[in-house]
Parts: sequence; C-alpha cells; structure tokens
Amino acid sequence: MDRNVKINDEGHLMLGGVDAVKLTEKYGTPLYVMDEDAVRGAMRAYRDSIDRFYDGNGMICYASKAFSCKEMYRIAEDEGLGADVVSGGELYTALSVGFPMERICFHGNNKSDAEIKMALYNRVGRIVVDNMEELERISRFADELDYTANVQLRVKPGIDAHTHQFIMTGQIDSKFGFALETGEAMEAVKKAIETPSVRLLGVDCHIGSQIHEVTPFVKAAEVMMDFIADIKSETGYEIEELDLGGGYGIRYTEDDDPVPYAEYMEAVSAAIHKKAADLDVGVPFILMEPGRSIVGEAGTTLYTVGAVKEIPGIRTYVSVDGGMGDNPRYILYQSKYDFLLANRAADEADTVVTVAGKCCESGDLLGENVSLPAAKAGDIMAVLSTGAYNYSMASCYNRNPIPPVVMVQDGEDRLIVKGQSYEDLIRNDL
Amino acid sequence: MDRNVKINDEGHLMLGGVDAVKLTEKYGTPLYVMDEDAVRGAMRAYRDSIDRFYDGNGMICYASKAFSCKEMYRIAEDEGLGADVVSGGELYTALSVGFPMERICFHGNNKSDAEIKMALYNRVGRIVVDNMEELERISRFADELDYTANVQLRVKPGIDAHTHQFIMTGQIDSKFGFALETGEAMEAVKKAIETPSVRLLGVDCHIGSQIHEVTPFVKAAEVMMDFIADIKSETGYEIEELDLGGGYGIRYTEDDDPVPYAEYMEAVSAAIHKKAADLDVGVPFILMEPGRSIVGEAGTTLYTVGAVKEIPGIRTYVSVDGGMGDNPRYILYQSKYDFLLANRAADEADTVVTVAGKCCESGDLLGENVSLPAAKAGDIMAVLSTGAYNYSMASCYNRNPIPPVVMVQDGEDRLIVKGQSYEDLIRNDL
Repeated sequence: MDRNVKINDEGHLMLGGVDAVKLTEKYGTPLYVMDEDAVRGAMRAYRDSIDRFYDGNGMICYASKAFSCKEMYRIAEDEGLGADVVSGGELYTALSVGFPMERICFHGNNKSDAEIKMALYNRVGRIVVDNMEELERISRFADELDYTANVQLRVKPGIDAHTHQFIMTGQIDSKFGFALETGEAMEAVKKAIETPSVRLLGVDCHIGSQIHEVTPFVKAAEVMMDFIADIKSETGYEIEELDLGGGYGIRYTEDDDPVPYAEYMEAVSAAIHKKAADLDVGVPFILMEPGRSIVGEAGTTLYTVGAVKEIPGIRTYVSVDGGMGDNPRYILYQSKYDFLLANRAADEADTVVTVAGKCCESGDLLGENVSLPAAKAGDIMAVLSTGAYNYSMASCYNRNPIPPVVMVQDGEDRLIVKGQSYEDLIRNDL
Repeated sequence: MDRNVKINDEGHLMLGGVDAVKLTEKYGTPLYVMDEDAVRGAMRAYRDSIDRFYDGNGMICYASKAFSCKEMYRIAEDEGLGADVVSGGELYTALSVGFPMERICFHGNNKSDAEIKMALYNRVGRIVVDNMEELERISRFADELDYTANVQLRVKPGIDAHTHQFIMTGQIDSKFGFALETGEAMEAVKKAIETPSVRLLGVDCHIGSQIHEVTPFVKAAEVMMDFIADIKSETGYEIEELDLGGGYGIRYTEDDDPVPYAEYMEAVSAAIHKKAADLDVGVPFILMEPGRSIVGEAGTTLYTVGAVKEIPGIRTYVSVDGGMGDNPRYILYQSKYDFLLANRAADEADTVVTVAGKCCESGDLLGENVSLPAAKAGDIMAVLSTGAYNYSMASCYNRNPIPPVVMVQDGEDRLIVKGQSYEDLIRNDL
C-alpha cells in the first residue's frame, strides 16, 4: 500500500503516536480510533483557506452527521468552526457541550415541529428551509416566541456531482429544497421576504458527496451568484450569505485523488468575486459544510481476526469481530477501504482475501479482493479512512454492542465515546 | 391493495384490535407495532406442523436476530419454542428473562472467546460449530469447566436458495460452515467425534432467506440425510439431530406468495422418513429456525407525513418522520413494502409517489412507485410487514432516536421497547 502510515520498530501501526496494538490491549476490539491532529488539521485547512482566499468573510460548518458526539462539537468550537446539524438529536448533543448556537446551521428535508421549536428556542444561527410548509411553520413558531428566525433557503442548482463526473441536469429530482429552473426557488425567496418573523439571510445548495473535482463547486457558485443577482433585480432584496454545502472527497484508497482544500476555496472565491463584479451584487458571506473530509481519513477501525477459511480455488474469508454493524458502508455502497495488519504493518501483502464480519448474514463483508499479509486468528486488522459515516451509521444488529471511540494525539489516548455494554442493549427493553 | 387489513368505522387501520391512529396519539411516531396474535399464531403453526407431521420429534427455534428484545424471548418460551441466538448480546437478552438455556442454539461464523465461554457457562443446549478452530476452543473451554458441550456442525449442503430459484452449486462460497462436497464436513465430523469435552449432537444447514418454495428444503433434507448415512457408514457414529435452519418466505407485498408453514414440514418429513428407511438410519430429532416468518408480517411501522413535494413531470416525494435509521432495508436491498394511510385506510390509492425519510441523505427512501391516496402533512403512514430486520437493524443515524415498539392484542396495547430519548443518544459520549 502506497500510503503514509506510521510503523514503529516492532512493526506495529502507529496512530497519533500511539501503538495501535497497545490500544486494542487497553480498549479491546472492535475499536474506532480518531487522530485528533488529522481532525484539527483538516478544520484549520478549511478555515485558513477562507482567510487566505476570501478575506476571512465566511464560516466553515462541520457537517456533524459524518461523526457526531460531544467531543466533536467541542473540537469544532475550539477550532472556530460552526456546525451543521440535521436533527434534534444532533442539536441536543451540540447543546449539551455548550456549542455556540449562533454558529449552528440546521438542515433537514422534514423537520418536525419539535425540532423547529427547539432550534428557535435555542436561537440557532440559521435554519435552512427546505419547503414552503416549513417556512410557514418557522414563521408561526418564531412569532410565538416573539423572535425573528434567521433562515437560508435550500436550492437545487441543477448541478449533480454525486460521482466523479457531474451533470447539469437531474438534480431537480431530489427530496431536498426548491428547484431553480422551475421558478420554485424564486417564488420561495419572494415568500420568505414577505413572511413575518423570518429574516432571509442566505441561499444554500449541496451538489453531492465524495467529489474529487473543483469544477462542480465553481459551477454551483456561479449558478448561485446568478440567482442572487436575479433576486436583487426582481425584488431589490440583497442576499447576504451563500452556503455551498459539502461534498469534498477524501482518500479511501489509492484510487482516490482528493483535491487539496485550498484549491476549492481559491477557485470558488475567484468565481464569486468575478460574478459579483460582473453582476453588481455584493460579495456574500460564505459557508462551507465539510463533514467526511474533516473526519474520514482521521479514523481507523481496529478488529481482531478470528476464523480464517480458505476455500480452495474460490477465495479465503478472513473474519473479524465486527462487521456491518460498526461499518455498514460496504453492504450499503460496496465502499472500498485500505486494510492492513496493525501488529505486522510492515509485512508484505502477499494474499488476496475477503474480509467478513461476524454477523449472521452472508452479505456481512467489509471488503473483497483485499490485499493483506496472510492473516491468522489473533492478528489485529486495521481499516483506514473509517472516521466518517461508520460510528454515525452504526447499529447493534445481531445485538453486537457498538464499539467505543478513542481519540489519539501526541502519543496519548483518551476515550471519547464509551462502547455499548450488554446492559445498554437491553436498557429500553421492558 | 388486495390485503387483509382491518379498518374501523372511522376509516382507520386497526392493528390487534387497536386503532392505529390512537396508537400514534399515545406513543408518537415513528412507532413500531407488533401484533401478538400474529407472532404467536406463526409460532404455533410451526410447532403444530412438527406435532402433526413429525410426531412432535423436533423443536422450533425462533431466530431472534430478526427481532430481538426481552419480550420476544418471553413469548417464545411461553409458546414452547427454543431460540436461535447469534451473539453474546442476544444470549444476554435471553438470559435476562430466564429463557431456558437448554433450548438455545448458538450460531455464528466468528464467535469470540467470551461468547463461547458465556454459552458454556450458561449450559446452552447447542453450540453450532462453524470451523475447526472454534471446535478446538469449545473443547478447551468446556474442559476448563469440567463440562461436555453439546454441539452441531454447520454444513454447506451445496444448495443455495437465496432467491426465488435455487441452485445446487455455489453455496460452497460462504463464510459459514464446512463444505460437504470437498470432504471438509466429514473431516469435521470425525474430528468432533474424537474431540474431548464435546458431544456431537447434530448437523446443521441454512440454505437461504425469503424462500417461497418447498423443493429447496426437501433437497437440503435429503442431502443432509445422505450425509448422516455416510457418517454412520464411515464412522459408525449416529447423528441424533438435524437442524434445517430458516429462510421461510413471507408476504411483503402482493407479489409474494409464501408457502403455508405446514407444507414445508409435511414435505420435509416425508423426505426424511423415506431417506431414513432407504439408508437404514434413525429418524433424527429435527430443528427449524424461522425468524422473519414469525415476526415479519406481524409488524407495522407508523409514521407521520411531513413535507409533500411534487416535482412536475418527475415524481412526488412524500416525506415521513423516520427513514433509513428505523428501516434500513430499502437502502440496503431495495426491499418492497405495502403502504397505506392509517387515518384514511379505506381511501382509494390514486397517486403514485416516492416515500422519503427525514435523513440528510438522498438515498434515504422507504419506497418508490408506491400507491397511496394523495397524502398531506399530518397523515399517518403505515408500512406493512416490517416486523423483521427493521428494529433489529435500526441505527440512530443523523442522531434520530430509535422508535419504541408496542405490542397489540385483543384491543390492548403495551410498550415492549421504550423509544430512545435524546439523553440515550449522548449516554456514552464523554
């Protein structure tokens, strides 16, 4: 594997200066490990890119659905970031550590009354409105609180970059937001401007996930600036904020070639400034909402190898003590990862195997055609780039407890999420 | 929909004699509802089929991974069933309500040391051995307890019926068990016979899921009887038990046409008796392990409709207040369900819509091309046949709490699993 992993003299994988094997001895397996420097480094890279290319006139909101727990909101606050939350549960978690509510962006295609009231009561900085009926409820509930809610409108810009290519059509077919091309978005803007107890702060879009190109973001910024100019000319209203969402790709395996964060900002900034000058509108305050690209590569999952089953002429199954419960991304999306043996990290990967989980389900695999040194029971397997959408999507299917999360930095480790106990599994059973 | 749903005078869906709309007023949404008569009825149908066609010489083990909680083990015990568990967590849940351990079958392709010790210490009736290395550990740990472990061996019979057809090859490519055709299974039998502190009770197979045909089960029974005869002739050892696993199909939608349970047993019994006579081996004690077919059709999930988004010429999204967190089967397998509006259950289904969840993920859908009466915010949506692999696979992705489970029977409702609270979501966060 041509990847920058650190290995100590014993041949063990090092994570944040800590021996991965020692971590498993201390905390058991499966174990999620997060590298704090990697998390903070990614946050700073985004923040610095705004300072450098956009005169600091913006905010990075960590998209916490990628990995939500108390400690992540503490770190985001400490690094000067905002946070994007998508539910009452995420907002509750942020509130529980005193995260500054003015830096919260509240998203969602179907917010409940209770969630909207919770957001308003706690004075979140922005509610991203998905549909007309939600706008009406926000207005009504804000009025009850004698408060003016700051909102953005979620717009479908007609750009879809869910894969490595992007297309300029199709995204109208989405459960999220108002379509630009049908006039629905402009109608929503006009409605929002005249709706009492609501202040229209900005417009928001999100063009996809795991994108490895600058162009789609530039196109989206241009389309949204055109829209901001159209709003000004049709209504006289000046939109102050532009939220470009997330979707910045990461390196899961060698096949991925992510763009350095600063390049996004540099190109997007140039496009926005040019459009602002050309169209005679103000340069908006900008928001970006990276999630995966902040935590994805920072995470490593450690497992213990159990049964190794060689089926002659077919394949070898290497089973580990976790699986689709702690990492549902393979069974969901056939997502690819890099694997290694943490206790023999320098050994040559001279076998090709299927990594299976321990769930009673034949689809419970973590990877196929995985290159590894010949594995045997007791080896510690590391799966790289598992910081995003693993813990956050975990289930206790088969009543396997959800593993703990440990943060590592400068040779120190600390538990940030306790693993589930058997008692936790039956806590709500009557 | 041509389905036998009960509707009261108000046009509301009735579940177990309880008005579904009243249930949502009492417990909120999303809400899992289980019909106790349907659960117990399915259990009895299986048990009776063994009495009727197999002289009562067998045991039905409820495959609890389909839906595991304390109450399900209580009901299974009450109905005279055994239980199939696949983890320490499921075993812990069964233990917590005093389920008779001699009626437990412990499965799994990668049991941990702790799980094996837990099973032995609690004297579970059968451990289903997946591989040689596990057999060795069972022997060693049983010896430490001065105990003889009752085991079955998991065999790949070379029959794969994971779809509506079945094939007689291929199943050798599985992470589970010992292959028959390579001689591996016979080798495992010989090893088990001579392994100290282990008593080889039976052989086990599992040929697939959601099967709608009798023939694959008959074929599997024949292949396994041939194997039992081969064991007798090669070693003189008489296998007492045959475990035919699960996989019996249910009705998710009108397209499904499940076989009545008794037909399986009648055909399988005839095949086993014929083989026993022809091959001069005893008629084995039989085990069957239905999961989905006991709880699947008994379950209904109730949601509240929120945003309804009509995209002219494309489709209409009807969003509900749950989604891939409480029902991951659509995003995992594109599983089809029948939908209706519980508060207008008699209304004609005159629209075709996409049912979307509330998660911030475009793949978060519950169904496409769903026939429904024109839905509006506040309607109660019911999704049928959601009793299996919904609650048990649920996650709190997006930090949406996992919904409660209510059991209904004879016009009465009782909570059997409390819904997660926001406090539960952060309970393990440090």
